[in-house]
Formats: sequence, C-alpha cells, structure tokens
Amino acid sequence: MTTAATTPFTYAKSLEAFERARRVIPAGIPGHQGPTEGCYIPRDAYPLFSSRAEGSRFWDLDGNEYLDYMCGYGPNVLGYGDPVVDAAARRQTALEDVVTIPSSIMVDLAELLVDTVASADWAFFAKNGGDTTTLAVMTARAATLRKKVVFVKGYYHGVAPWTQKLDYPGVLEEDVAHNLSVPWNDLDALEATFREHRGEIAAFISTPYMHGNFVDNELPAEGYWQGVRRLCDEHGVVLIMDDVRAGWRLDLAGSDRHYGIEADLLCFCKAIGNGYNLAALTGRESLRETVASLTYTGSYWMSAVPFAASIATITRLKELDAPAMFRRVGSELTAGLVESAAGHGLTLVASGEPALFYLRIADDDSLDLHQRWVAECVKRGVWFTSHHNHFLNASLTSADVRRTLEIADEAFGVVARER
Amino acid sequence: MTTAATTPFTYAKSLEAFERARRVIPAGIPGHQGPTEGCYIPRDAYPLFSSRAEGSRFWDLDGNEYLDYMCGYGPNVLGYGDPVVDAAARRQTALEDVVTIPSSIMVDLAELLVDTVASADWAFFAKNGGDTTTLAVMTARAATLRKKVVFVKGYYHGVAPWTQKLDYPGVLEEDVAHNLSVPWNDLDALEATFREHRGEIAAFISTPYMHGNFVDNELPAEGYWQGVRRLCDEHGVVLIMDDVRAGWRLDLAGSDRHYGIEADLLCFCKAIGNGYNLAALTGRESLRETVASLTYTGSYWMSAVPFAASIATITRLKELDAPAMFRRVGSELTAGLVESAAGHGLTLVASGEPALFYLRIADDDSLDLHQRWVAECVKRGVWFTSHHNHFLNASLTSADVRRTLEIADEAFGVVARER
Repeated sequence: MTTAATTPFTYAKSLEAFERARRVIPAGIPGHQGPTEGCYIPRDAYPLFSSRAEGSRFWDLDGNEYLDYMCGYGPNVLGYGDPVVDAAARRQTALEDVVTIPSSIMVDLAELLVDTVASADWAFFAKNGGDTTTLAVMTARAATLRKKVVFVKGYYHGVAPWTQKLDYPGVLEEDVAHNLSVPWNDLDALEATFREHRGEIAAFISTPYMHGNFVDNELPAEGYWQGVRRLCDEHGVVLIMDDVRAGWRLDLAGSDRHYGIEADLLCFCKAIGNGYNLAALTGRESLRETVASLTYTGSYWMSAVPFAASIATITRLKELDAPAMFRRVGSELTAGLVESAAGHGLTLVASGEPALFYLRIADDDSLDLHQRWVAECVKRGVWFTSHHNHFLNASLTSADVRRTLEIADEAFGVVARER
Repeated sequence: MTTAATTPFTYAKSLEAFERARRVIPAGIPGHQGPTEGCYIPRDAYPLFSSRAEGSRFWDLDGNEYLDYMCGYGPNVLGYGDPVVDAAARRQTALEDVVTIPSSIMVDLAELLVDTVASADWAFFAKNGGDTTTLAVMTARAATLRKKVVFVKGYYHGVAPWTQKLDYPGVLEEDVAHNLSVPWNDLDALEATFREHRGEIAAFISTPYMHGNFVDNELPAEGYWQGVRRLCDEHGVVLIMDDVRAGWRLDLAGSDRHYGIEADLLCFCKAIGNGYNLAALTGRESLRETVASLTYTGSYWMSAVPFAASIATITRLKELDAPAMFRRVGSELTAGLVESAAGHGLTLVASGEPALFYLRIADDDSLDLHQRWVAECVKRGVWFTSHHNHFLNASLTSADVRRTLEIADEAFGVVARER
C-alpha cells in the first residue's frame, strides 16, 4: 500500500459562493461549466469557482492548484494569460474595440484565415460557435432551396433550437422537423438517406470525428470523409464541418484538411482567440454570395480586440507547430496513463485524437470506477473530467506531464485498493 | 450664403481597405455595421473602417475625426475606452478570463443585476442580445407548453431564424410558423389576438418603445404597458421585454420599470459592459426553474473579463445618474437641431426617447433631403445615421453638443441652398 503523497483538496469557499450563486443565477452555474451537466461526478470532488489562471494551471476559490486538461472547454490553446496574445489585445484595447464602423484589423484577420485554412475563400465573424453552425445551415438552405439537414447520431452543434432534441424543454417539433440522422462512419446509411430524400437535403453537418460525451471517441474510418465528400457532391448537399471543438488543435489548415478533404463550410470558435470571444465561419467561393445575402449580424461581431487576439493566437500556433506538439504530448500522456493503470491491474482506454483525448476505465460496466479515479485526480490537482474529451494547451511542460502521471498513478492506486 | 467652415472629408484609405475586405469577407462588411444595410445613404458620404476611438469620438482610417452619435450601435455608453471600465477589465485579465470553471465574479455581477433591475430575481449570462431573446422565447414555451409568440409589427429581436421573416434567405416556414403580430400601441388588437388564440400563446415580446428603422420612433401611449401587463396576466402569457437597445439608457432599474410595469423576462446586451462582449437575461422568480431546465450554454458565456467590465459600467452609470444626463443632453441636442433646421426653413422631427433620438427631415416625401443633410454632417465630423435611432454616451460634453449644433447648422445650410 502506497502512502498518499498529497492531501486531497476541500472546497469550502467554492460551496459558499455556489450558495450565493443559487440565489441569483438559475442552476447556480448553468450549462457545461456547471455541476448539473453530468460530467462532474461525484459533484463533491470538484470545486465550483476559479480565482486565477496562468499557463497550464488554474486555482480555485480555496486556493487549490490544478493542472488543467479541460482548458476552459477548449479556448485555452496557448496557455492561460498567454503574454503574447494578451499584449496584442492590450494594444488593440488602447486603440479601439466595438466602434460604429469596424476596425480594419477585421480584414487583417480574414486575410490570415484565408491564408491559413485550406478550404477558406472567405471568413465571416460572430461570437458563439452556434452562431456559425446556424449561419452554415441557413446558408445551405438558402443556396440549395432545400430544407433537410443530416446530422450524425450523438451530435452537438450548439444550443439553437434547430440543434436540440424534441424532448428538450422549450423545443418545438417545427424546430427539428427537417433533421435527419445517420450513424457515424456509415457511408451506406448516408447514401441511403441521400437517395431516400433526393433533392430535399440542404446540408450534412458533422464534427471532424466523434468526440461525444459518455462514449469512447471515434476517429473517421479510412476513406470515410472522402466518401462523404463524394456523396455530398453527387447529391448537391453542402458539407458543413463543425470544427468548433477540434479546430486549431489537429491541423492549422482545418480539420477537414487533416482528414484529407475540403468542407464547403467550416465552423470555428474556442481556440481561435485563446479565450478572447470570437467565432468564425469560413467557406468556399461558391457560397460567398449566399452568405452575403443573409440577414445575420450581432452587437459585438466586429469587436476589434478579439480580432487582435486571434491574429496573435494563430501566428503563435504556427510558430510553435502546436498541432504536432499536441499530438506528441497527448500520445505521451495517454500512453503513460494507460501504463500506469495497467500497473494497478486496471484497463484505461484512451480514445479520440491525442490533442483531445477521451479517457475511460473499462474494468466495470458502470461508470463508477472511472468517476472515482477522476475524482481522486481532481482532488490532488489534476483536472480531468469524467465523460468529456480533454484539451491540451501549448504551455504544458514535460514536468507538468510527469506530475500528472504521478498524481494519476496515486489515484489509480486509491481506486485499485478500494475495489 | 454662409461660407463653409469645414472641408468635407474624403475616404481613400477606407475604400482601399474595403476592396481588401471584399476579397476575404462576404459583403466586405456584413450586417448593420456595413454599407449594404440601408442606413448609410449615400454610401460615399461614409467612411468604412475606423482606426481609433476615445470618449465621444472615433477616427476613421483616413484620420477624419467624428463626434459619434451611434456609439457602436449602443455598446458605448460611458465613452470609448472608459478608463474606469478598462482598468477593471485589465485587472480581471491579469487574474483570469475563460477558465474551466467560472470565476466567482459572475456571482458578483448577478447580485448587482438583481439589486439594480427592479423586475430581476435572477440573471443568466450569454454573448449576443439574440442569445437572450431566444432563451426568453424558449423559456416561455417551456413554462407554458404553448407555441405561439406575439410580436409587434416592425420588430427586431436579433437574427435567429425564429425572429426573421419568411421571405429572408435561409428561413423556413417552420421557423416562423407560430409567429403572430399586432400593431404597436394597440391594446385592442393584442386582446383580440390573445382571445383568438386562447391557450396557445406562450409569449408577447416587444422593445420598451418602437425604435424601428426608417420610421419615426413611437413611445408607449399612456397606460399601454399597464394594459399589456394586465392582458398577459389574464391569458397566462409570458411578457418579454427586449431591452437590448434601450437598456441602461432610460432607467438603470430596467425600461419596464421606466414605463411603470414589471416584465417577466428582460433582455440586456450592448450597454451592459460598455462594449465588452456580454448579454444577460433577467427574470422573475416564477421562471427560474424553467430557465434552469433548458439546455443552453456557450463557449464564452462565463468569460470573467466582461463580467468585471459590466460591474464597473453599471456602477459608473449609477454614480453619474446617466439616464438623467442622457435625457437632458438628448433633449438639449434635439431641441437645438430642430431650431437650427427651422432657421433654414426646414422641419426636423426628433422622435423616440431623447437618449436614443431618431431624426427625420419632414420637408419632402422621399428620404433624399434627410439623407443629404446627414451626409453633410458626417462629412464634417458629426456621425449621424439616416434611418436608425442614435445613442448618447456619458462622455459627451457641452462643447461637443455645441460643436455638433454648429456642424449640423452648416449642413442644414448646404441642403437648404440646394433645394
């Protein structure tokens, strides 16, 4: 029996703040950053509020320090408070941010995206990833004069009513009346759907691979995306890739390029500005005029500071060849975790791309053993999440990875002894 | 004949940048900040890109300076680059912004909103005004298990498909299948609609007064909002006030309070953070659990920096009693403009609330004379917009107003001579 090397954390101040939050915010903390979404189990293993973040770490309200593998659910791609990005944002703040007419830095960023993203002939800016998936679907409908959209089962493309499910509160049958779905990696099903609804399908929308919650993540089968591209071309269907989550971590030229195709429309958010609030839709020439014809705008969509931050972020990601770094670090980390688990007689499955690895302990049919291991990691300062893919950032050091493996090993030991 | 006191501006660098923009952004500048939306007429009177902003002014790419009465279409409420707000944002940036769990400053802001906004028992944060109008309508549908929404003719509540019109590109009949509309200030029509669709109407959604484009703005008739409130209560309809545009300029306790009622849900954006990207829905206790039950979240919805900026903005607006200042300055400015027009034999109509005044020269049936006057103002450094309400900010000085009246008078002279 090993001796605990660390004292598990406690969260008194987080809990106090959550009691205040419950009085003035529905659910206290709504959505995926809150405790009710299902990924934070058991709830008492997790703190609820942060107080400071820097590089690969954040600190909760009680002062506990975490090596963070969620990265704000994606935006933190270079490290929290990256000095180069923050300096660029500060310089732009001194000039202007939201003004009556846009700053020309919007054009600089659009040029950079068109230069960087292989399938991009133009860029359109907004605030939420969901602003771009909605714009993409509206564009496909306007361009094809068709209504139906094909999703991949288990999809998530934001929270607009058309992306939700009929049994979710506030969603009407009309919102989802034209949604069809097919299983992932199933070209036969896709072709059958395209044939059955010939001339009715506006778009196929999918993430570059299946990085769903509560399930092992699945990469595309050999030839899958090429098959999708061919079927979309044959049937005049707009191919929308939702790169909100994986974008900028697999390939700076786009995750469509990473898997060997060109999408018609590509949705970006999260890592595009290292946390500064920005989303972008990029697309091919053939859809430019359609996008221009839509009524689609927002109060902050031309904020200049996020444009400056995004230029700095993308430039730095290129200098670092960050996707290669993420692949290497993610592979090393997940291999180390799998080996550590095996040393305690446990089987850890790491799935998805190394840059966004998903973890699952496969030794029981329930999720309980996995959740307890993650909890022991979190309470010792390594922030994993039980049933969501993780995210890497470029400020992670070899020492960080070693420390992660030490704490994970200790946590495997705890749950192995309790079995 | 007066001698021109100023040399009209030219925009060579803006036009160069716009040519670059057209290559990489659909429409060059999409949406309401661009030249194709109809408010910038004649187009060649307006520059297209800004380079710097401070206080009540911004400078375009060619270095021309404007006294700005659009305020970024609303967000600039204290003055561009307000030092107190920017300092608060800078302090928060040094701590953290988008992190895996939210900063407790989210709770501080929610408490401030609940303390400040009369009808607010809770607050929910997002990024776009449209995020909050969509959440409001979904909440009303989930709470009532009804589908229909009553709008006021001429409405604008963002760009989500449910808020658009059937003849707009990319919009399906299903998106707007449950939209009903009534004329502004018409309680009889509202009551008739509520009766005709008894038990089917989830929500009534409206701005606090009609600040539409291309038409004189209309205030609520005496007793109108009290009548709306009574009808909503009688028919179990959720009363949603869209305070995205007017919010924080009429009454810091909410524009519903300004007009003597309490809405069930109140939508805020724009001026809530002096330009830092933030939106909020506030609401009454009875809808708290419904909001908490919805699937509704976004990547940046818990960004801490905009929360810090919003706390500083609202605190400063209270210290200044900004709504009283806006009423006084807006009344003084519009009275001066009307008088100046009269001196040139022209009839200027100023409508709407003084804080968000709308202007129209009423001496021809076309819009031409008005557009030419606005163009002459813009080309001399006063940024008005032909057919949209304007916005005031708290950094405007008496000298700014005098300068505005001087330039406006010169512009009235130009168009009066041309008649």
